[in-house]
Amino acid sequence: MQLGRVIGRVWSSVKNPGLKGQRLLIVQPVKADLSPAGRCLICTDCTGAGAGELIYWVRGREASFPFTPEEVASDATIVGIIDELNLAGKKKEPAC
Amino acid sequence: MQLGRVIGRVWSSVKNPGLKGQRLLIVQPVKADLSPAGRCLICTDCTGAGAGELIYWVRGREASFPFTPEEVASDATIVGIIDELNLAGKKKEPAC
Amino acid sequence: MQLGRVIGRVWSSVKNPGLKGQRLLIVQPVKADLSPAGRCLICTDCTGAGAGELIYWVRGREASFPFTPEEVASDATIVGIIDELNLAGKKKEPAC
Amino acid sequence: MQLGRVIGRVWSSVKNPGLKGQRLLIVQPVKADLSPAGRCLICTDCTGAGAGELIYWVRGREASFPFTPEEVASDATIVGIIDELNLAGKKKEPAC
Amino acid sequence: MQLGRVIGRVWSSVKNPGLKGQRLLIVQPVKADLSPAGRCLICTDCTGAGAGELIYWVRGREASFPFTPEEVASDATIVGIIDELNLAGKKKEPAC
Repeated sequence: MQLGRVIGRVWSSVKNPGLKGQRLLIVQPVKADLSPAGRCLICTDCTGAGAGELIYWVRGREASFPFTPEEVASDATIVGIIDELNLAGKKKEPAC
Repeated sequence: MQLGRVIGRVWSSVKNPGLKGQRLLIVQPVKADLSPAGRCLICTDCTGAGAGELIYWVRGREASFPFTPEEVASDATIVGIIDELNLAGKKKEPAC
Repeated sequence: MQLGRVIGRVWSSVKNPGLKGQRLLIVQPVKADLSPAGRCLICTDCTGAGAGELIYWVRGREASFPFTPEEVASDATIVGIIDELNLAGKKKEPAC
Repeated sequence: MQLGRVIGRVWSSVKNPGLKGQRLLIVQPVKADLSPAGRCLICTDCTGAGAGELIYWVRGREASFPFTPEEVASDATIVGIIDELNLAGKKKEPAC
Repeated sequence: MQLGRVIGRVWSSVKNPGLKGQRLLIVQPVKADLSPAGRCLICTDCTGAGAGELIYWVRGREASFPFTPEEVASDATIVGIIDELNLAGKKKEPAC
């Protein structure tokens, strides 16, 4: 899974029926020190994550599993919200 | 899913039968600020997207799902056209 | 799918039986302006592409689909030869 | 598989049911000389690896295989702990 | 498939049962001119490749196919040893 932060949202009226009713969140990948790293992507979500939250997502085939038996044409889905990161004994709160 | 802009099209007479009848669009990946980022790719399309439009695509196995039961040998398919991007409260129109 | 140019070929006598009888072509990925970009890879081929030709390939699971019911252990297969690229109204011939 | 070192852990109360009961470890990818390289990721684990250990992980569909018949929504799983690396005849202990 | 050279080996006593009995080789990806490029990875092998040999590997789901019906939890497997590379008419021997 990859670490990221929700930084926005996308609206889209023309889309594949397999994405109807799905919130589409813009996620900025982050490093372990929580600084941004790399290109943003659009994720579906099964956690109710909101803007500013630190999350992790799965990509590939696994991204559609949380929605079965619905067939969601997604290749990136947020599967968890992070409460706390512990790096070599140092705690880190996922502050925005 | 990845953010991108349709910047062109490809014609190809010799191709896998699983791509017959598919429009092949050239997509430039973009960042959240809509500036270009990285190498272009060729996508199949299930939205009717045209040149200049801001879209998002899925890659991998999911890319062939919008076409089932047809078997389309694609690993990247446009699944939505973006109406509006909202980054930390700021709206962004996907102008060309 | 990714854009690339066939730049060579590989011979290999010791290989997985699932690759027997397959031509193995060396492909240089290219950008939309057809300049080279990134590391070469080895592709199987279902189009009869030759050296110098501009092609596109699929990767991942889709790469073995053109060969079914044969089981080809390939993760990258050329699925089309490009006749013409059209970028924002400008035509481009895939000259070598 | 990729080489990496376990550098921390993540706690997450809101998450996909398919991740319940799974330890989520933060892994720093490393090069063959064991220096860090690239962005950290979050892995599930089937080896009992602890902080500081040199490990390798699988990604993609294979990442959920070690847990079958449980359906774990993971795209990266630690599948082994490294005892010793041998590079061109030189042994290397995976010291922290 | 990707081009690479076997540069070492990994020993690991704690590992997923799906990797028991598999040799784990360290592979350095190489460019078409055979110079190294990018991060090393660990591959399973179905060819008997040894240190110094020029090989190509598949990644993803295809990586477990050479071992069926055994279920090997690998996402990267060497599927061929290269005898000769031919780039635009120039032959290249895969010398170490």
